[in-house]
Amino acid sequence: MAGTAQIGVSGLAVMGRNLARNFARHGYTVALHNRSAERTHELVDQFGDEGTFVPAESAEQFVAALERPRRLVVMVKAGGPTDAVIDQFAPLLESGDMIIDGGNAHFADTRRREAALREKGIHFVGTGISGGEEGALNGPSIMPGGSPESYQALGPLLEDISAKAADGSPCCAHVGADGAGHFVKMVHNGIEYADMQLIAEAYDLLRHAAGLEPAAIADTFRRWNTGRLDSYLVEITAEVLAHTDAATGRPFVDVVADEAEQKGTGRWTVQIALELGVPVSGIAEAVFARSVSGHTDLRAVGGRLSGPGRAALGADEAAAFVDKIEHALYASKVVSYTQGFHQVQAAGAEYGWTLDLGAVAGIWRGGCIIRAAFLDRITAAYAKDPQLPSLLADDGFAAEIAEAQDAWRDVVATAVRLGVPVPGFSTALAYYDALRAERLPAALTQGQRDFFGAHTYRRVDRDGVFHTLWSEDRTEEQQ
Amino acid sequence: MAGTAQIGVSGLAVMGRNLARNFARHGYTVALHNRSAERTHELVDQFGDEGTFVPAESAEQFVAALERPRRLVVMVKAGGPTDAVIDQFAPLLESGDMIIDGGNAHFADTRRREAALREKGIHFVGTGISGGEEGALNGPSIMPGGSPESYQALGPLLEDISAKAADGSPCCAHVGADGAGHFVKMVHNGIEYADMQLIAEAYDLLRHAAGLEPAAIADTFRRWNTGRLDSYLVEITAEVLAHTDAATGRPFVDVVADEAEQKGTGRWTVQIALELGVPVSGIAEAVFARSVSGHTDLRAVGGRLSGPGRAALGADEAAAFVDKIEHALYASKVVSYTQGFHQVQAAGAEYGWTLDLGAVAGIWRGGCIIRAAFLDRITAAYAKDPQLPSLLADDGFAAEIAEAQDAWRDVVATAVRLGVPVPGFSTALAYYDALRAERLPAALTQGQRDFFGAHTYRRVDRDGVFHTLWSEDRTEEQQ
Repeated sequence: MAGTAQIGVSGLAVMGRNLARNFARHGYTVALHNRSAERTHELVDQFGDEGTFVPAESAEQFVAALERPRRLVVMVKAGGPTDAVIDQFAPLLESGDMIIDGGNAHFADTRRREAALREKGIHFVGTGISGGEEGALNGPSIMPGGSPESYQALGPLLEDISAKAADGSPCCAHVGADGAGHFVKMVHNGIEYADMQLIAEAYDLLRHAAGLEPAAIADTFRRWNTGRLDSYLVEITAEVLAHTDAATGRPFVDVVADEAEQKGTGRWTVQIALELGVPVSGIAEAVFARSVSGHTDLRAVGGRLSGPGRAALGADEAAAFVDKIEHALYASKVVSYTQGFHQVQAAGAEYGWTLDLGAVAGIWRGGCIIRAAFLDRITAAYAKDPQLPSLLADDGFAAEIAEAQDAWRDVVATAVRLGVPVPGFSTALAYYDALRAERLPAALTQGQRDFFGAHTYRRVDRDGVFHTLWSEDRTEEQQ
Repeated sequence: MAGTAQIGVSGLAVMGRNLARNFARHGYTVALHNRSAERTHELVDQFGDEGTFVPAESAEQFVAALERPRRLVVMVKAGGPTDAVIDQFAPLLESGDMIIDGGNAHFADTRRREAALREKGIHFVGTGISGGEEGALNGPSIMPGGSPESYQALGPLLEDISAKAADGSPCCAHVGADGAGHFVKMVHNGIEYADMQLIAEAYDLLRHAAGLEPAAIADTFRRWNTGRLDSYLVEITAEVLAHTDAATGRPFVDVVADEAEQKGTGRWTVQIALELGVPVSGIAEAVFARSVSGHTDLRAVGGRLSGPGRAALGADEAAAFVDKIEHALYASKVVSYTQGFHQVQAAGAEYGWTLDLGAVAGIWRGGCIIRAAFLDRITAAYAKDPQLPSLLADDGFAAEIAEAQDAWRDVVATAVRLGVPVPGFSTALAYYDALRAERLPAALTQGQRDFFGAHTYRRVDRDGVFHTLWSEDRTEEQQ
């Protein structure tokens, strides 16, 4: 027996509720289910006039309410709760039905679940959804993985409710098989960490090197937001910095405790990048910077350490320095996206996903936290050359960094001299300079490894693997 | 039935063989076992005159050859092979017997194995052993975990064959329960990565900023090795740099391919640090620097990117710059040990290990790759204050960095200007400056997180958790 609802949403906390309303507002009949039926009825009571909802009291009713093949969106907590809901629904489903996990699952769990359900003929579609509560309601960025078949049945609905880029195209596309969608969502979050860290460093320098107050810094970010840095995060940075705390009359940013928290996806991104052998130093430094900020015990120690007093630059230098910071921020941002896309590319090779990196950038153009004009440029770069080995291989980005780099170097050097920490700016620059280097000191590292552990090395002039008899006569042996 | 051998070694590849010989040379009767008996007999044939060996053809014979409580050292590959050997021996053992895993196991596996064997009354002693083949034979640094009871029966033997520090004390001590030994060995390796990266950066700057040739750089490291940088790694750096390639007559370091490899413990260290929320940016940058060096595809792209040409400093500046590099190397090294010890400390709290950080530094003073005069200083700092929250809280280290930091900042700024990548030096400096900062831009990060995700924030002036209604009237709500 099949019902009439084109889609169902189970798990009606704020994200699930808003997603259900989004579907309903687009004309779909939406079946609703929640562990406690109270929330289901609340939704219908409050928002029933937005579209057609079919409330279900039980899993069985919910499944029966859906037309076939069934599309069940599951919006519950990652981990155990997701497995529990799958276990509840799977026995009720038929071959060809789809479970769409819109939570923040680790992509490895998604791969596991997809394989298990595939054996039962059920499509499991791990789907990254970004944009928070508001995005869920008004148009999120949607990153579905799973089988191409499932996307045929599901894609039109998801594209319909997704955010739209400036050119009108939906911020939703089939990312790749099994866990590809959740993987890409994870890297999105990692890049978000890096973006936020770079903005934080720019703010710190605008304040302590250029000597500006928060309101003036808000103006600066607002101005930057009309140029190549045009993005949601730069926009809200201006909003946050312009905000005055009502209780004290002080700038809001000065009354907020300076201990950044994190929920884990940045950490995952770095852990997986390490597994894949991809250097994502910008994301790593961002994660570490947050954790440093939270270690109040160590910061209490640090407060007694000596160093320069962050004397701001003179007024003449300061104005020029503001523009240099824009260059440093932009160049560092290009590098951190380069690293993030490298990670997505490497994952494609590792897990056998056929990925369209330009489409990934395309999905992120709207709806999500890192949405930015800049992403059009990435989409264009991959459209021009889908085999681009790195974003830095794109002539446009390379030219911009070439133009930015004197300023970028000056910003890092000045920060180092003034004692303002810029781990994000400096690691991005180190990555750029390492890639540029004709020779890296890694040759010395290999020599040391051969010395103490007989780990062998390769030579620049001959193929083969070699070992020097360091503790004997230091002749070389080919292995 | 019990035998006469005080210790047994199973797994007679080079590490196991050398460890068995080390025990025998110290007067212990050593039972020998290997999957293929050929290696067992080879050992006896070649080295039988070094002591008393009891070769065994089977697991049963091997177990029977040992006095009780039995001490079985297992020297096989981490992972499956270790589990296989445990499964083979466990049924043959009795309550109170000990299996010592001297391989490179992940500490989480060690925790799992220890718990499983504990139920059977068998002590499982995950033991970090550092020093390579030569250390195994002549005195390694030994880091045993497991129960305190097992250390009573085992410690004297291990201390006997371990390296000795300059003051004569053994480089072996009970680290802590279950996986603590393997954990500490892992962090040792992570610190080794960081040490090697910092040395690589110093070399790169000596070459491309100070303009020295490898032979002169070898002299510089040799000189540094007589001061506070006195260490095995600095010593062998000089050896590697002084070496001339016989085939070409060129400096050895110039004929080695500059693509550094890695075996995984550096990566593990960073992955676990992320789990623990400990910033180990120095180790992370070292791991990433190795992986950058190996991405020849990206480096081919990088070769076309523009940047400064690494013009060396003038002769007058260059001489002074050499000394500045020593300061930068030393200060960065202090920071990377600070981060590594923070990780060990945090692991103790997380996994319930009672750790003596001074003893950990003590174990590393001899036998292992990171052995260094410097470690005496760390032992002394923790002896003075076992509750030291951070190495940077030690007055001695703080004073040295205070003295070094102008040079350190100048080195990073110069490297950035010349285009020489120094991710290790710069992340160490950023960590130092972040700890020093009275306010961090993490307050902005928290403001952004509250704006886009209602993640809330705390205030500097009142307890509680707050959220600003950003999309409404921007009033603040206490949660």
